Amino acid sequence: MAGNSFGNIFKLTTFGESHGTAIGGIIEGCPAGLKVDFNAIQAEMQRRKPGQSAIVTQRKEADEVKFLSGIFEGKTTGTPIGFLIENSDAKSKDYSHLKDVYRPSHADYTYDKKYGIRDYRGGGRSSARETACRVAAGALAKQLISNIKINAFVSSVGEIFIDKPYQKLDFSNIENNAVRCPDAETAKRMETLIKQIRKKGDTIGGTITCVIQDVPIGLGEPVFDKLHATLGKAMLSINAVKGFEYGSGFCGARMRGTEHNDIFNPDGSTRSNLSGGIQGGISNGMDIYFRVAFKPVATLMQSQPTIDKDGNRVEAIGKGRHDPCVVPRAVPIVEAMTALVMADFVLLDKVTRL
Amino acid sequence: MAGNSFGNIFKLTTFGESHGTAIGGIIEGCPAGLKVDFNAIQAEMQRRKPGQSAIVTQRKEADEVKFLSGIFEGKTTGTPIGFLIENSDAKSKDYSHLKDVYRPSHADYTYDKKYGIRDYRGGGRSSARETACRVAAGALAKQLISNIKINAFVSSVGEIFIDKPYQKLDFSNIENNAVRCPDAETAKRMETLIKQIRKKGDTIGGTITCVIQDVPIGLGEPVFDKLHATLGKAMLSINAVKGFEYGSGFCGARMRGTEHNDIFNPDGSTRSNLSGGIQGGISNGMDIYFRVAFKPVATLMQSQPTIDKDGNRVEAIGKGRHDPCVVPRAVPIVEAMTALVMADFVLLDKVTRL
Amino acid sequence: MAGNSFGNIFKLTTFGESHGTAIGGIIEGCPAGLKVDFNAIQAEMQRRKPGQSAIVTQRKEADEVKFLSGIFEGKTTGTPIGFLIENSDAKSKDYSHLKDVYRPSHADYTYDKKYGIRDYRGGGRSSARETACRVAAGALAKQLISNIKINAFVSSVGEIFIDKPYQKLDFSNIENNAVRCPDAETAKRMETLIKQIRKKGDTIGGTITCVIQDVPIGLGEPVFDKLHATLGKAMLSINAVKGFEYGSGFCGARMRGTEHNDIFNPDGSTRSNLSGGIQGGISNGMDIYFRVAFKPVATLMQSQPTIDKDGNRVEAIGKGRHDPCVVPRAVPIVEAMTALVMADFVLLDKVTRL
Amino acid sequence: MAGNSFGNIFKLTTFGESHGTAIGGIIEGCPAGLKVDFNAIQAEMQRRKPGQSAIVTQRKEADEVKFLSGIFEGKTTGTPIGFLIENSDAKSKDYSHLKDVYRPSHADYTYDKKYGIRDYRGGGRSSARETACRVAAGALAKQLISNIKINAFVSSVGEIFIDKPYQKLDFSNIENNAVRCPDAETAKRMETLIKQIRKKGDTIGGTITCVIQDVPIGLGEPVFDKLHATLGKAMLSINAVKGFEYGSGFCGARMRGTEHNDIFNPDGSTRSNLSGGIQGGISNGMDIYFRVAFKPVATLMQSQPTIDKDGNRVEAIGKGRHDPCVVPRAVPIVEAMTALVMADFVLLDKVTRL
Repeated sequence: MAGNSFGNIFKLTTFGESHGTAIGGIIEGCPAGLKVDFNAIQAEMQRRKPGQSAIVTQRKEADEVKFLSGIFEGKTTGTPIGFLIENSDAKSKDYSHLKDVYRPSHADYTYDKKYGIRDYRGGGRSSARETACRVAAGALAKQLISNIKINAFVSSVGEIFIDKPYQKLDFSNIENNAVRCPDAETAKRMETLIKQIRKKGDTIGGTITCVIQDVPIGLGEPVFDKLHATLGKAMLSINAVKGFEYGSGFCGARMRGTEHNDIFNPDGSTRSNLSGGIQGGISNGMDIYFRVAFKPVATLMQSQPTIDKDGNRVEAIGKGRHDPCVVPRAVPIVEAMTALVMADFVLLDKVTRL
Repeated sequence: MAGNSFGNIFKLTTFGESHGTAIGGIIEGCPAGLKVDFNAIQAEMQRRKPGQSAIVTQRKEADEVKFLSGIFEGKTTGTPIGFLIENSDAKSKDYSHLKDVYRPSHADYTYDKKYGIRDYRGGGRSSARETACRVAAGALAKQLISNIKINAFVSSVGEIFIDKPYQKLDFSNIENNAVRCPDAETAKRMETLIKQIRKKGDTIGGTITCVIQDVPIGLGEPVFDKLHATLGKAMLSINAVKGFEYGSGFCGARMRGTEHNDIFNPDGSTRSNLSGGIQGGISNGMDIYFRVAFKPVATLMQSQPTIDKDGNRVEAIGKGRHDPCVVPRAVPIVEAMTALVMADFVLLDKVTRL
Repeated sequence: MAGNSFGNIFKLTTFGESHGTAIGGIIEGCPAGLKVDFNAIQAEMQRRKPGQSAIVTQRKEADEVKFLSGIFEGKTTGTPIGFLIENSDAKSKDYSHLKDVYRPSHADYTYDKKYGIRDYRGGGRSSARETACRVAAGALAKQLISNIKINAFVSSVGEIFIDKPYQKLDFSNIENNAVRCPDAETAKRMETLIKQIRKKGDTIGGTITCVIQDVPIGLGEPVFDKLHATLGKAMLSINAVKGFEYGSGFCGARMRGTEHNDIFNPDGSTRSNLSGGIQGGISNGMDIYFRVAFKPVATLMQSQPTIDKDGNRVEAIGKGRHDPCVVPRAVPIVEAMTALVMADFVLLDKVTRL
Repeated sequence: MAGNSFGNIFKLTTFGESHGTAIGGIIEGCPAGLKVDFNAIQAEMQRRKPGQSAIVTQRKEADEVKFLSGIFEGKTTGTPIGFLIENSDAKSKDYSHLKDVYRPSHADYTYDKKYGIRDYRGGGRSSARETACRVAAGALAKQLISNIKINAFVSSVGEIFIDKPYQKLDFSNIENNAVRCPDAETAKRMETLIKQIRKKGDTIGGTITCVIQDVPIGLGEPVFDKLHATLGKAMLSINAVKGFEYGSGFCGARMRGTEHNDIFNPDGSTRSNLSGGIQGGISNGMDIYFRVAFKPVATLMQSQPTIDKDGNRVEAIGKGRHDPCVVPRAVPIVEAMTALVMADFVLLDKVTRL
């Protein structure tokens, strides 16, 4: 299996299944001499952790990151940073009934067809549990590029949208509610909706908006590794993501050049920012902002018709502990992937010029 | 500059500036023994070529692909395939007035800030001319995976959308009009709009939809190289792209699990296909479909206020030869990038199992 | 720090310092469906383990490999295989006296200069302890390519050489003595020499010869990744290695073409094999054989003049537990790196032809 | 075919067959702003060029490097540098008699078995003609790291060796004779031997020594990409190379630790330099020196018994134009590969520390 690594210089490689002994990873390319704030890393883990509020899955995981190498006397040494996160509350028995069943819109069927074998417990490698490793690595990346501000938040749940531009939002409110929506009134409506949905044993989709500020000019590696292309891949690699747009996004496709072009100010900043802070794949110093679409979680707390390995019609029963809506817990994942992208491009940019 | 390569096994690396001697590339990893249909490659080049119709740029380029290696007596030998495309009609003088001017929403400013030097003629490396290399390589990739059908088409220009699902469209009509929209009536309206826009010296955005059919089950490399994440990066790396969505896309974010889940038929196909043919990052054998948003071309045939290198306010005059709407010529580029992704995943899949 | 990974498809990435909590790694690209023989892996670990005989370091490490992922019900699943090896007998106090001292011909000085910080305990990342991860991964690689026979053995210690061609040796005798020399009489002389050297607090170099048999024709990826070039890098990346030669090696540089050319038999085999089983970087089906030179271990059990961080002249005292001669324990490491190379090329070869 | 690229940041990818239209490559990662000395590049090409003296092949190639991109107004722009070298004097007819014949100790047999097809003219991709691209790229790399001095020279031809340490040689004499041996008297004897060998239609092997001076401390990326391991791979990837040793090399395997350890001076330099300027895979600021063994050229100007594709015994007739001894022309190739390695490590080192 290819595809376990992300990044060129600042590079994360992960391993692990949802119900194995542990998940973990190796972070390469973190420069030597970075003082590591372990509490800040653990705080990010808490944001992604199951069981953190009434509207998320009740699986209990400590999600404590154990660093095994690459840090000495509190500082990075430049050598690879190995880390582990144990699977302490893996109730694998919850899944024995699914051993031969393909759950609708999960990866059960495709993994079986591709590999001929799969760890069926909790989705195995395809479980979103893997994203815990991304959050751990992303939290370190954030410390490396602490000058760059990364704020993601829930911008919609189902049909409920924040109806303000991000500039009118106070990002310091993001963590003030369980939904991670900085607009208190909208957050309340979202939370109510999620609870209703959960009560019905159903799930619901949503979007996350991410804003990157104080970005140095010149990050990104055209042609194929444009900054937004890499951000897009990073986001699309997160479980349940169906779409990515940055700057004007899909709206931009309806516009005219005279409306869309961002006119320069004498200092190189632009009056408007439909470009979303990126021109030709390279950051221009303006805010980078993008939006990520998440589908509703496929696991329902109700039975669904499906098939087993032999093509027999069976019922998939909704057991296990799952999120009715994935976006609140996905906020730190979006930020982590963003941090990984930005950290890598900051390092790559160091060899751009003589 | 990193980022000049795309793919893992079937891998394209490109070089070249819009107004240099030539652009070109190296295709690695094409298996030995493939009989090359050079006419089919050149036909794809024609689809992307400037000057092909009344609604595109009138730059005249032969865009003839010269293969220099890796093909012997009409067949690939397994060795790297070097190729060149000459820049025959590069009117560099058109650009001398832009030497010190940063055109709005172009990459002039960011390249200068990043590299401290740039080939200002026609956008240099940031020009969409580079995509000619992608089309050449993609045309070869198509021949390698000839069992997989790839059809892209223009699904919207400005506010004009095709209002049918792709299943109701006849893809054999795509090449029947200059817009590359398979719905004749909509195509006419789009063409009229583009001509109006051009007359005003303005430009307009649009979207392209791509459908991949007859896809083998099991393509894609989770975790970070999910099939859709790689397709997304491929598309977002194309000039002017602002967004990507596959399957249910952004609409999926408004839906509930009970609506969104694709229920299996006994043969492993699914009744609905909101998953867009991909589950857990791996193809499930259903159609893959995605939509790509293109912004309006930044070069206008009218003057715009902007700045020069020293921050002086100047006018950017609309000279050169440019497209009023990029999507008709982007159709073969979207297909080419799709073919590169699929060819690579087909080869990667060969080492999945014992 | 780059350089923690080895291989393209079958790929090992390692982490860990000699005296940290644990060392470990991630094996990617092992095809799904391989039944894992854990005892065989542990048996390879025993061959590399400290404390295994009277002529090696007496550090006591269980060196038990804990697999954390990628194996389910005894078989590989195709997903990445994370593993850990704990550092149980790390006597870090042994090294506190070396905190500011640069030991001669160690990596203390260069790590400090490069990274500005280092884990000085037992050599940290530069310790040969890291090779335990290679042996673990190599043992799995051996199982993947079980048709290919890999036999390494000690061919010289100091001035004592085996004076027979490898064809006259019985590889089943390699493990019959502590030196891992298949020639019993030579082994005895080597062992005596090593004991004498150790008694003096000195160390001694040696060479290892490796023979790869039953190699499929066609492995290796010219131009830059020729089979022997990759084997050479693999060997040179092992601690203490100073040289690599294959086939006729340095002797070949003294020969004439008429002597050196390997004449074909009608079946494609060759009468002689000065090519060492590789032509143009690709295996030709004949035995591959190569020789690796190891310098004497730098840590002496006697004091040596050296310097500290501030350039003061100090004495490096020979503490800790070390090998008087590295080659007996390096035999399984040479085999492991060979297996990693061969497994990767076997997989890469699967995409060579249509 | 994998294996066409060398380097991580400063990266060369090559294409081309001996008798195709042209060979060429793409240099990525050269920082922007380097003033290119084209004459210096062409001068390096002259050193490798066929027909340069009486003791090398008389094939006539202009070997003029045409740069197609990435350089603007004499300076690198940071974008990829595409280049071509035409095959102007390819006498392909010389090879038609070899279409179905496998020449002894060439790559004819292995390419055919691996790929099922090959360009048989002049060795195709396996021809040493490909090294012209390395020399072109290496010449640019030399300009990037102009502070580092790289000198390679012929240290032996057959049994004739320079009997002095490199410190006693005057490198400015290297280019004063056709053999590229800085010791005039030895050079004469080598030249005489090569002429004798050629007269007999035979060939002879030799060694090249390379010395790298004024190396910054800290270059190299342990664990797997140790400086000497990467140099070793670079050298072993050159056609006809059979062995590589650095510092004490194979002699080091006969020595004791008390003899071999390099004792520090207070300034961090070492009294002796058996380490060869590298400790733990990282440069320590002392001279790096290594030795490369080349086998005798396989093409003889006399007939040899061999086989054809069908296993029939045939004669391989010595036609074409070939070198009786490869080392004089290999000197610039060794230097070029060295420069590529060092340039890449210089750039990689820029992201080592905060």
